[in-house]
Amino acid sequence: MNGFIGIDLGGTQLRVAVADARGTVKSVIRVDTEARRGPDHVIDHIVETIDRALAKSKQGRRGVAAIGIGLPGPLNGATGMVYSPANLPGWHNVPLGKILTRRTGIRTFLEHDASLAAFGEWRRGAGKGRRHMAYVTVSTGIGAGFILQGQLYRGAGGIAGELGHIVIQPGGPLCTCGNRGCLEALASGTAIARMARDAVAGRARTSLRGLEGPNRPDARDVNQAAKRGDAVARRVLDQAGTALGVGLGTLVNLLNPELILLGGSVMKAGGLIRTPMKASMKASSWEAARGGLRIVPPALGQDVGLIGAVEWARDNV
Amino acid sequence: MNGFIGIDLGGTQLRVAVADARGTVKSVIRVDTEARRGPDHVIDHIVETIDRALAKSKQGRRGVAAIGIGLPGPLNGATGMVYSPANLPGWHNVPLGKILTRRTGIRTFLEHDASLAAFGEWRRGAGKGRRHMAYVTVSTGIGAGFILQGQLYRGAGGIAGELGHIVIQPGGPLCTCGNRGCLEALASGTAIARMARDAVAGRARTSLRGLEGPNRPDARDVNQAAKRGDAVARRVLDQAGTALGVGLGTLVNLLNPELILLGGSVMKAGGLIRTPMKASMKASSWEAARGGLRIVPPALGQDVGLIGAVEWARDNV
Repeated sequence: MNGFIGIDLGGTQLRVAVADARGTVKSVIRVDTEARRGPDHVIDHIVETIDRALAKSKQGRRGVAAIGIGLPGPLNGATGMVYSPANLPGWHNVPLGKILTRRTGIRTFLEHDASLAAFGEWRRGAGKGRRHMAYVTVSTGIGAGFILQGQLYRGAGGIAGELGHIVIQPGGPLCTCGNRGCLEALASGTAIARMARDAVAGRARTSLRGLEGPNRPDARDVNQAAKRGDAVARRVLDQAGTALGVGLGTLVNLLNPELILLGGSVMKAGGLIRTPMKASMKASSWEAARGGLRIVPPALGQDVGLIGAVEWARDNV
Repeated sequence: MNGFIGIDLGGTQLRVAVADARGTVKSVIRVDTEARRGPDHVIDHIVETIDRALAKSKQGRRGVAAIGIGLPGPLNGATGMVYSPANLPGWHNVPLGKILTRRTGIRTFLEHDASLAAFGEWRRGAGKGRRHMAYVTVSTGIGAGFILQGQLYRGAGGIAGELGHIVIQPGGPLCTCGNRGCLEALASGTAIARMARDAVAGRARTSLRGLEGPNRPDARDVNQAAKRGDAVARRVLDQAGTALGVGLGTLVNLLNPELILLGGSVMKAGGLIRTPMKASMKASSWEAARGGLRIVPPALGQDVGLIGAVEWARDNV
């Protein structure tokens, strides 16, 4: 009873890590989630992958004290219930925590993926020693996790941290959540791609037009075109950065964190997105609330959720 | 050393309460703040009023264990520093906590007025026993205080809770804080009065035109006209309620509280502001984040800040 398992269950990839008692990851298996085959299949697939990961590190289930698993919300970590994540089709009120505990014989602790990323960065990454910090990832979607008063903040029902779905343009573009004008509908990679395709479909002169295809241009195309000087691509990033700044300004005014860890593929656009972001954040938050605030990239890379899941398992036993 | 003093320092009124060891208020003095005469005068005035309040309840300074004082932010409760509250002219970086401690010989603990109102409602009012709650007051301005994880949340620099200054309409009306499109510039009593005066100055047919005068029509005029069926007044309240709902939706998505205590003079408009508020809150938050949420009025009335200040003093010794 001295090892831990961390799991990062995404819409496309399932990752399982085996760690020792101190949380050091010994082996990782990354496989396709096979999400389209529905929850029963995915759960079987998780259990098999746990056993493969244990075999790879020559351990049995008995040597594992706890499993931590992060996945997209909405979910309730306290009850282990998964409601209906947008990128896990067919999942509706699945008691995943209880199911995995029963199927593996190992106590399983479930949490929102962005919350576990925040927790991982706080325990082992760029957030060590902070009392009030936010982790924000801007990628296909926009996720956030909060450490407040020196602990993971999850709210009354485990739903806190939905930064991607705060409305910053009432009546704006439709979001995957069904509401309009959410931050995610204005500043995520998906939003950037949508704005680019709208521009291509219109009359704008842009090098993005040459890239048309299924799901193209995408956010990466926009970044590259913007770096080449394409004015339309730059305008798209400027709009996304401006929206992101409003979202961060809101975060700052409400929570007054000392640190924001800001990452995700969209941030690879660098100054093209950061410059408008900073200007609009300044125009949408109090100077006093920004005082002492640092905004830096996360430190743990693509396995941040996995490290957070291991740490969450350790924290719960 | 068994009594406490609670002070509520507002832009117009200064209130000082003397309470016993259990926090029961024994006497209250309410006087004009005389804010226009600047910080030195106001501080003298506070000290004199403390002595008057003590004399009224036949106590000396020696019988007081601590002073709690709430005032408008921005300020830092941990250091006792007051930055530059909009309605206390001339105050810039005043170390009020230290000054009052020195002048009275009684340890003084300072906090944002809305935070102390939240704290008072949590300890003695409608928020008893809650782990995650927000107190929101919609009046001349919009203030909020948060109890998170069973304690008052103040953020890294004591500035958390600036709900009135989250931007929900980028580029919108100018706010007193210097930014544009803040919730306070769209849904406060001041905003309602501005919208009403704009309508009167325009061509709208409205009974509000008969009320023109210095600072008229005001938010109360709008409430009364709306209740009589004035369409323009109703539209103004509808707009304010819609904006308020976006702000509350943001609060719910980020913090997922179990309870929001919602009060202030603007809420006296009842359904005329609550109905659009609820609709827009629904359109700007996740169903899962609203699950289990109750929105109810505060219980402690106009002295909530004073009771919170007494409780804050008790909590700090």
